[in-house]
Amino acid sequence: MENRQVLLARRPSGRLAADDFSLVTGSLPEPAEGEALCRTILLSIDPANRAWMQGRTYRDQLDAGEVMAGFTISEVVDGNDTGLSRGTLVAGDGGWQDYAALPARRLRAVEPIGPLTHEMSVLGITGLTAYFGLLSVGRPQPGETVLVSAAAGATGNVVGQLARIHGCRVVGICGSDRKGRLLTDELGFDAAVSYRSDRFAEELRQACPQGVDVYFDNVGGPVLERTLGLLRERGRVVFCGAVAHYDGDDRTGGISFNPGRMVVRRLRLEGFLVSDFLPEWPSARTALAGWVEGGSLQVLEDVVDGLDAAPTALVGLLAGDNVGKRIVRVAPDPHDPERVLGGR
Amino acid sequence: MENRQVLLARRPSGRLAADDFSLVTGSLPEPAEGEALCRTILLSIDPANRAWMQGRTYRDQLDAGEVMAGFTISEVVDGNDTGLSRGTLVAGDGGWQDYAALPARRLRAVEPIGPLTHEMSVLGITGLTAYFGLLSVGRPQPGETVLVSAAAGATGNVVGQLARIHGCRVVGICGSDRKGRLLTDELGFDAAVSYRSDRFAEELRQACPQGVDVYFDNVGGPVLERTLGLLRERGRVVFCGAVAHYDGDDRTGGISFNPGRMVVRRLRLEGFLVSDFLPEWPSARTALAGWVEGGSLQVLEDVVDGLDAAPTALVGLLAGDNVGKRIVRVAPDPHDPERVLGGR
Repeated sequence: MENRQVLLARRPSGRLAADDFSLVTGSLPEPAEGEALCRTILLSIDPANRAWMQGRTYRDQLDAGEVMAGFTISEVVDGNDTGLSRGTLVAGDGGWQDYAALPARRLRAVEPIGPLTHEMSVLGITGLTAYFGLLSVGRPQPGETVLVSAAAGATGNVVGQLARIHGCRVVGICGSDRKGRLLTDELGFDAAVSYRSDRFAEELRQACPQGVDVYFDNVGGPVLERTLGLLRERGRVVFCGAVAHYDGDDRTGGISFNPGRMVVRRLRLEGFLVSDFLPEWPSARTALAGWVEGGSLQVLEDVVDGLDAAPTALVGLLAGDNVGKRIVRVAPDPHDPERVLGGR
Repeated sequence: MENRQVLLARRPSGRLAADDFSLVTGSLPEPAEGEALCRTILLSIDPANRAWMQGRTYRDQLDAGEVMAGFTISEVVDGNDTGLSRGTLVAGDGGWQDYAALPARRLRAVEPIGPLTHEMSVLGITGLTAYFGLLSVGRPQPGETVLVSAAAGATGNVVGQLARIHGCRVVGICGSDRKGRLLTDELGFDAAVSYRSDRFAEELRQACPQGVDVYFDNVGGPVLERTLGLLRERGRVVFCGAVAHYDGDDRTGGISFNPGRMVVRRLRLEGFLVSDFLPEWPSARTALAGWVEGGSLQVLEDVVDGLDAAPTALVGLLAGDNVGKRIVRVAPDPHDPERVLGGR
């Protein structure tokens, strides 16, 4: 059996391009002691993938020649005495390849509540990030104004919908009028503003006439700077990501803020990682699944087929061409009834 | 009876100077309905006094020709049917003058635990600011490193001593080696660094070999920027003041920070005002008084005599020539036993 792998061929210079990657084919990896052999089914495409190329983050920097890293949902094909049974679904750090030998202690068993893709979108890291970032860090109160950037993106759309469910006025910042209409017409946002508009600053102020109580920041950069001026007394900024800073050579570029205003308005700016809330993941998943089931939380997914499509999927994500959670389907879901019944 | 008043003669241009003020003498104010006539005993000199001249903060901007604003401890000389008895000590916003007619509902009765000056330093707004900023906002744990700027100043010295009492490693940033020695030799700081040193960045890193868990910021500006890079995972910055931004024409100048680092290190940056914690003031005063009584919290005061000394006292404070809480004694304490026994 072959194992296709997408390598980071070179460290990107400036904006990431598809030819910064190369597709190679080798043999199946041999799992070492404590490792299981896993077949990739779904591959998560995330803005953070690009940040990993810039330097050390919460993981080591990715270097040229390495298999591109990425979060995966896989099926165990050989448990190799790790206690994992063949056929078990696991979430992990499998990377951009068909097969990976992964340490069992770093895998999390996946027991799908609905479609498997939901385990990577609304019930996976993406949805959990929105849940804890908004509710545990931002802590919005009913009637408050919640602003979210990259609002049509994987995390942003869930943040906005959760804020609506919690009785807030919800404003989304996105990159096109088409996405804006999706937010207001389909997902129940109160307003949407495109950061590409010539009148962005004015439109943002008009969309937030009372100012902003919670700003959920996925982008950093000029949008963040602009938003800091709109924060009300006791306003909060949840730092979830800084995609405006990822797709280039320099991740140290800062944004400017006024420390005196921090005091007078009693602002709180706070960053978080979803892994900080691991013990609370099960209860959050139950809550999220309940809202999905009840119809108040729509699931927005953007599924691309085939491992070879991963490079363009990431390049496009960084340019903002996705709507909702972008996932690469590397192999068919072994438990999908359609596949079993009809084949694909 | 005469009423001396110090006016803000003109809006300062650039750095504040003593001749931006003028001393005038008028007659006693007539209290309106709901107001009491109060005689100023102590006048608080605070960096924020300068910020009030720059624009609207938590109070209206001070304009040229107005009596300079300042926090006071006064004695009621005419209750004027407000329910306040003659002789009652009150804290309020009396300004730089011998007598003020003040709305009774905006006065707080002062019941001194020790010397009256303590009610303006360690047991007053200054000490309470240190207490709530450090313990309620910064929330340091034993063994953590707490860094404080303007560490020999009114709030800073209390912050450092409270952090020591709570089992932290304490590092102070101050403006001279003389102040640094006071912090380490007299107040129990583990280390002190002068921001005026040519080797400031290196000395700061050496003083915080494990990085910084809580940075209590009184200054803003380049010192704040430098410190952000030293924050450990889950590091916190308490924004209490930004004196580096006050003594000039432009208070909008910002400092630069990196939003990506906010996420990866899960930093929290939070501003506060001591008034946010009003219901908890009595219990905090009891705690602070206990530490003073027990000898673990030293009281650092810098008392200047006479209303006419107030302008140079503020100009000097902004240049950093004070040690501890700077207070102008406008009139003798009516309850001071020394005064009663020996006269002054």
